[in-house]
Amino acid sequence: MMFLRWRIDVESKVSLMLVFACAAGPALTGCSPTATPGPDGAGAAGFGNADQVAAAFSGLGGRWVDLSHDYSDETIYWPTDSLGFQFEELAYGETDLGYFYSAYRFATAEHGGTHLDAPIHFSRGADAVDEIPLDRLLGPAVVVDVTDHVTPDYLVSVADFEAFETEHGRIPDGSILLIRTGWSERWPDREAYLGTPLEGAAAIPELHFPGIAPDAARWLAENRSIDALGIDTPSIDHGQSADFETHVVLYGAGIPGLENVTNVGELPETGSYVLALPMKIAGGSGAPVRIVAFVPE
Amino acid sequence: MMFLRWRIDVESKVSLMLVFACAAGPALTGCSPTATPGPDGAGAAGFGNADQVAAAFSGLGGRWVDLSHDYSDETIYWPTDSLGFQFEELAYGETDLGYFYSAYRFATAEHGGTHLDAPIHFSRGADAVDEIPLDRLLGPAVVVDVTDHVTPDYLVSVADFEAFETEHGRIPDGSILLIRTGWSERWPDREAYLGTPLEGAAAIPELHFPGIAPDAARWLAENRSIDALGIDTPSIDHGQSADFETHVVLYGAGIPGLENVTNVGELPETGSYVLALPMKIAGGSGAPVRIVAFVPE
Repeated sequence: MMFLRWRIDVESKVSLMLVFACAAGPALTGCSPTATPGPDGAGAAGFGNADQVAAAFSGLGGRWVDLSHDYSDETIYWPTDSLGFQFEELAYGETDLGYFYSAYRFATAEHGGTHLDAPIHFSRGADAVDEIPLDRLLGPAVVVDVTDHVTPDYLVSVADFEAFETEHGRIPDGSILLIRTGWSERWPDREAYLGTPLEGAAAIPELHFPGIAPDAARWLAENRSIDALGIDTPSIDHGQSADFETHVVLYGAGIPGLENVTNVGELPETGSYVLALPMKIAGGSGAPVRIVAFVPE
Repeated sequence: MMFLRWRIDVESKVSLMLVFACAAGPALTGCSPTATPGPDGAGAAGFGNADQVAAAFSGLGGRWVDLSHDYSDETIYWPTDSLGFQFEELAYGETDLGYFYSAYRFATAEHGGTHLDAPIHFSRGADAVDEIPLDRLLGPAVVVDVTDHVTPDYLVSVADFEAFETEHGRIPDGSILLIRTGWSERWPDREAYLGTPLEGAAAIPELHFPGIAPDAARWLAENRSIDALGIDTPSIDHGQSADFETHVVLYGAGIPGLENVTNVGELPETGSYVLALPMKIAGGSGAPVRIVAFVPE
């Protein structure tokens, strides 16, 4: 009896250890799900994986956070945009057949509200919105929080990334890097968010909001392998930029941008996961994007 | 020595059994991650969960599938739509400052291409696009495949759902039900997809494509708890519907619809997971939606 239990325990332990080893670190160890067949013949780690994913996709084991502002007549666009978010009612009310029916159409620039910049926005021949591989649009989130020293003309620096890495370790390959400046709390106050009440071309020299220093963009592009970069301000270049060098550097390296992101403060600095799914515009240089994060408990 | 190993094995087994139990069935058993503290004080199941999710979000342990058509001048709209997908170039080429720059704006109806129908589309006071909880937009995928007996006027029936359940078990609560008719293979051939070459109001009586029978919609709304329903045709009601009763029934029950879905054939009938993230239009009755699925290995 004792021997039998021992044997069962040993077998269970080996089986469970394999499950755990694969469960704990497939991304780190290269553990193959097919290497550990379970009692039903399916990969045990695959099974574990499927059910862990199932938990996340059932809203269990953590919470989902919405990182997108909505589109409305309060949506903030670049000062030179003359369109804004146009939303037109096509139908609203009871029909002759007795049922309620509502429908609308809309018009917008690609680059207003919470949107994705495709690399082709600043890099000829680079990926358009519909050409960005899904793998680039999802990954572990890394939040670099500069709220304790940000200013309206702040440039996120290499030192900010180094400080993050000193505390949390190297920015992982394939991660989605989100910059938290706190600017989303000013939304939808256009003047507070952009730094000027002016509109049109006259507003451009008066823009004041934080962005990423070109040197820091270059450091990221050359030394790390992030999938995408997001920020909670109108642009990855700061308001006072005249040459959009951070755009040129990152998009030239094939790294999409996410602008006007919100709720970044609801994410831990490491340990959450992001999906940024843009409207699939063929040949688009950008698109409205719905960004969500899963924060495991 | 033997005693020591035994004790370690028993402890490991207990710990790992807890991990496995939580890993295998948090959605089914209500297992709480915090009930199984691991060696580092964090919830062991939470840890396992995080790393399994990490694998999915790193594109490991499975593959991501794009279930959305792109938006272009080939996008198929309802025959009464006069706008189509309007895509206007704002800039394309080298700027005076020496960098390349491209940008566009666009206009579209909410209900063309691969889009989400919010419940308010056919149900007064129901959720608009921006009001749908994220939990409703993600979940395990259930694929009901009717390709072996579909016809251009086919109505997916209660019998189709019962046949699915006989083979695969009950449609899980919180799942996203996708109907595969094979119609997406006709995209973007407008006449083949809609069943008529006509446009405008004259086309409506001539529409021929599969949809879901109102009885089947009622059965789903009353007897199952799906989060959302998608189909690879232009509408959840079939082409010959005059009263859109399936829309009325499902949206009246708060269940959003996904129309013009594609690539459903790349998913297994059970075991994959879907996220459907619509453009976040405040008060929208629908929106372009990017739908992706994760298929574990």
